[in-house]
Amino acid sequence: MQSLKDAIRTIADYPKPGIQFRDVTTLLGDARAFRQAVDAMVQPHAGAKIDKVAGIEARGFILGGAVAHQLSVGFVPVRKKGKLPHTTLSQSYELEYGVDEVEIHTDAVAPGETVLLVDDLIATGGTAEAAIRLLRQAGANVIGASFVVDLPDLGGARRVEALGVPCVSLVAYEGH
Amino acid sequence: MQSLKDAIRTIADYPKPGIQFRDVTTLLGDARAFRQAVDAMVQPHAGAKIDKVAGIEARGFILGGAVAHQLSVGFVPVRKKGKLPHTTLSQSYELEYGVDEVEIHTDAVAPGETVLLVDDLIATGGTAEAAIRLLRQAGANVIGASFVVDLPDLGGARRVEALGVPCVSLVAYEGH
Repeated sequence: MQSLKDAIRTIADYPKPGIQFRDVTTLLGDARAFRQAVDAMVQPHAGAKIDKVAGIEARGFILGGAVAHQLSVGFVPVRKKGKLPHTTLSQSYELEYGVDEVEIHTDAVAPGETVLLVDDLIATGGTAEAAIRLLRQAGANVIGASFVVDLPDLGGARRVEALGVPCVSLVAYEGH
Repeated sequence: MQSLKDAIRTIADYPKPGIQFRDVTTLLGDARAFRQAVDAMVQPHAGAKIDKVAGIEARGFILGGAVAHQLSVGFVPVRKKGKLPHTTLSQSYELEYGVDEVEIHTDAVAPGETVLLVDDLIATGGTAEAAIRLLRQAGANVIGASFVVDLPDLGGARRVEALGVPCVSLVAYEGH
């Protein structure tokens, strides 16, 4: 079986000098790697009752759409502020400079529904934490969070687990 | 079988007075409707050789990710300008006021690959046309374009078919 890491492209000094950007578009474009990643994101939850998959805009939509399809469940978009047309719940999170917000529709999940959160990459975990808080605010039980890439030095997975949400990632880059 | 139209929510006067916004998030969140939509987007191409699915940012990522997974092929993101980290091809398209651009990575498709284009909705078809031109510029053979919603009064499907790309949509709203 191919290593998923081989399917991820690293772009040096993007978006700014000193950053090694982990580009998952090459993985998504590779039929075997894409399917392998979706399988591996779902596998730890085999047998669990999952009602919905929530994906974080924008790359989390691609993986989340595929994971929701794999599980035959509905999909909940966690979007940037101002993008959803109906009434929303909102959570802010910190950026390197300033704050941003993510939103879900108030009726995106029903109270008590179990949700698996999906994104391509976890770094500091700020967006993931905001998404978990949003989903809980709507009454969901977030049973796990699955990522393709983890940058463990930035502590995002620990931050998600500190919220009581088990975190799965497929590939880690130390020293990011 | 449930009507897909019943799963789509209409929001009056969004984003501005007089516009009836067709909100597919309710369809995506409904396990049966989501799966039915993905099946119906793929069905006309049963038996065809499809190498990749291209989805248009952002809702086209959700449906396109699911369609790519259904077909066991790779996914190509068609993104808004400046979002892709590697070298890109770019195409502009007209907005109501001004122009915008979409991009793909130059290596997102290999010459001769067959691609199915996916988005949630076709209105004037400006973005779809730009996406088709981009994919062709990269050497792809765009064998079809599949949408959940068509607003036929805006002429997008005719515009896509005039480019020689067969267009499939699941639900139409006359007089949008």
